[in-house]
Amino acid sequence: MRFELKILGSNSATPAYGRNQTSQLLNINEKLYLVDCGEATQINLIRYGVKSSRIKYIFISHLHGDHYLGLVGLLSSMNLNGRTDDLTLFGPPPLKEIIDIHLKYADTRLKYPLIFYPTQALHQETILENSDVIVRSFPLDHRVPCTGFRFDERPALAKINIEKVAQLPIPALRFPDLKQGKDYISEEGVIYKSSELTIPPKPTRSYAFCSDTIDSGKYHGAIEGVNLLYHEATFLHDMLPRATETFHTTSLQAAQIALKVNAKKLLIGHFSARYKELEPLLIECQSVFKNAALALEGATFTID
Amino acid sequence: MRFELKILGSNSATPAYGRNQTSQLLNINEKLYLVDCGEATQINLIRYGVKSSRIKYIFISHLHGDHYLGLVGLLSSMNLNGRTDDLTLFGPPPLKEIIDIHLKYADTRLKYPLIFYPTQALHQETILENSDVIVRSFPLDHRVPCTGFRFDERPALAKINIEKVAQLPIPALRFPDLKQGKDYISEEGVIYKSSELTIPPKPTRSYAFCSDTIDSGKYHGAIEGVNLLYHEATFLHDMLPRATETFHTTSLQAAQIALKVNAKKLLIGHFSARYKELEPLLIECQSVFKNAALALEGATFTID
Repeated sequence: MRFELKILGSNSATPAYGRNQTSQLLNINEKLYLVDCGEATQINLIRYGVKSSRIKYIFISHLHGDHYLGLVGLLSSMNLNGRTDDLTLFGPPPLKEIIDIHLKYADTRLKYPLIFYPTQALHQETILENSDVIVRSFPLDHRVPCTGFRFDERPALAKINIEKVAQLPIPALRFPDLKQGKDYISEEGVIYKSSELTIPPKPTRSYAFCSDTIDSGKYHGAIEGVNLLYHEATFLHDMLPRATETFHTTSLQAAQIALKVNAKKLLIGHFSARYKELEPLLIECQSVFKNAALALEGATFTID
Repeated sequence: MRFELKILGSNSATPAYGRNQTSQLLNINEKLYLVDCGEATQINLIRYGVKSSRIKYIFISHLHGDHYLGLVGLLSSMNLNGRTDDLTLFGPPPLKEIIDIHLKYADTRLKYPLIFYPTQALHQETILENSDVIVRSFPLDHRVPCTGFRFDERPALAKINIEKVAQLPIPALRFPDLKQGKDYISEEGVIYKSSELTIPPKPTRSYAFCSDTIDSGKYHGAIEGVNLLYHEATFLHDMLPRATETFHTTSLQAAQIALKVNAKKLLIGHFSARYKELEPLLIECQSVFKNAALALEGATFTID
């Protein structure tokens, strides 16, 4: 199953040096999940050849403009392009009010169902479960209510070990139980163990998105052991006072967090417009956490 | 005095083929006036090397997203970039409510004075007069309240014809009156005519912006004799029923309007995303009005 992240924008606050504001696209089993929607997201979707009609879910972390000001334009363009499929939007409760006011004054009624699911920034919550993925929101620690999102691949069922089962008197009717880990007990009372007759599924993969936040530790549990961790790293560590004041993280802190939560790989982003060159942010990060990369626009990362 | 128009975006409804949504920048005597502010306007300002801090006035024609969804982002970036100079914004009354709701949920207070001047789409009105220009809004005919804007260079005073005046017993104290067209009558009752003693100023130049509108004729008076007319031409004329239905204009109609109002030059824009090639729109337009051009992004037009 494909589990892939594409960076559409990764600058903080203001666009700079050709870098756009935060937006990411997850392709999970050919369904598209958009995470944050900074200004010009719809333009970048076109640039990278992504049909916005394929987006099924949109997740907005918080209501600072650099994370959602492209949303109303994208929703409108989907409408103008004839979308009829429903779209599920997750975000802070006032987001609905903001969208509604725009649509009201544009005298526009969306022709597709927009299902709005308000998030809360108080505690971790499962906000979506479908056949491919389980998505949880969790509180980050920012100047306004802000949530991160964790995407866990849905555990697959074990596979029947055909070679072994073929030699035993187990009715095929019982195979689904075996796959789900239940042992089969024959009429004669013989126990056939699921664990011995099945091949366990591949370990599930996971992705977590953390932007924007101060390093307060309150969300570390939610991102424990994640395969790919995107964490904001707005500043170099010499700017720690500024990072703290603005409720952001430094590159060094992002690396320390990745280490602490046992992430397999770290992506840093949400770069301050003060940095023309991003390499120093990566070098600082890798001094603590080696398997790290810059969330550069247009780059694609496979989660494995 | 510089009087120059730069196109930042000229696509309608949705971005397409690298074309962004409506935004234009007027440079009038080194002051910058932004007309409409579609999504990604701030990104295009950076692309074209325009410092947004130089923008003094912003004009929004109407509340369809392709004409203003870049505004909140631009206002926020000005704030983050430390603007303290006041900014005057002209637009439909609900625009204030829309901006306020964004700022409220972002917990942001602009550090510069934002002066909001609500426009109305009922009758022509002078909305701005400064030392360089007189700006009038006028109603267009669209699906929601929409205004055009006309920028007229402020008439300069006549110049004293020094050679002639030097030979006459006119006190220098009276020169300002002569410049303003008042004759001077000496104590002996001799009349010295202003018209004979002054050099008339250069004719004033003007620019008019008309987007979006159906060709209803109700605004033709407001754009009479304009030097440069920007008029929307969303469709080719074979799409007239669609243009009418959506309250837009065809390229042919734009040309007919330019001819009727005695415009000196016509710029067409607000191109439908259905057109990859824009040349056919220009050819159709020039079949009726020769001095016409496409409002291509990045192009600059001197008004003369």
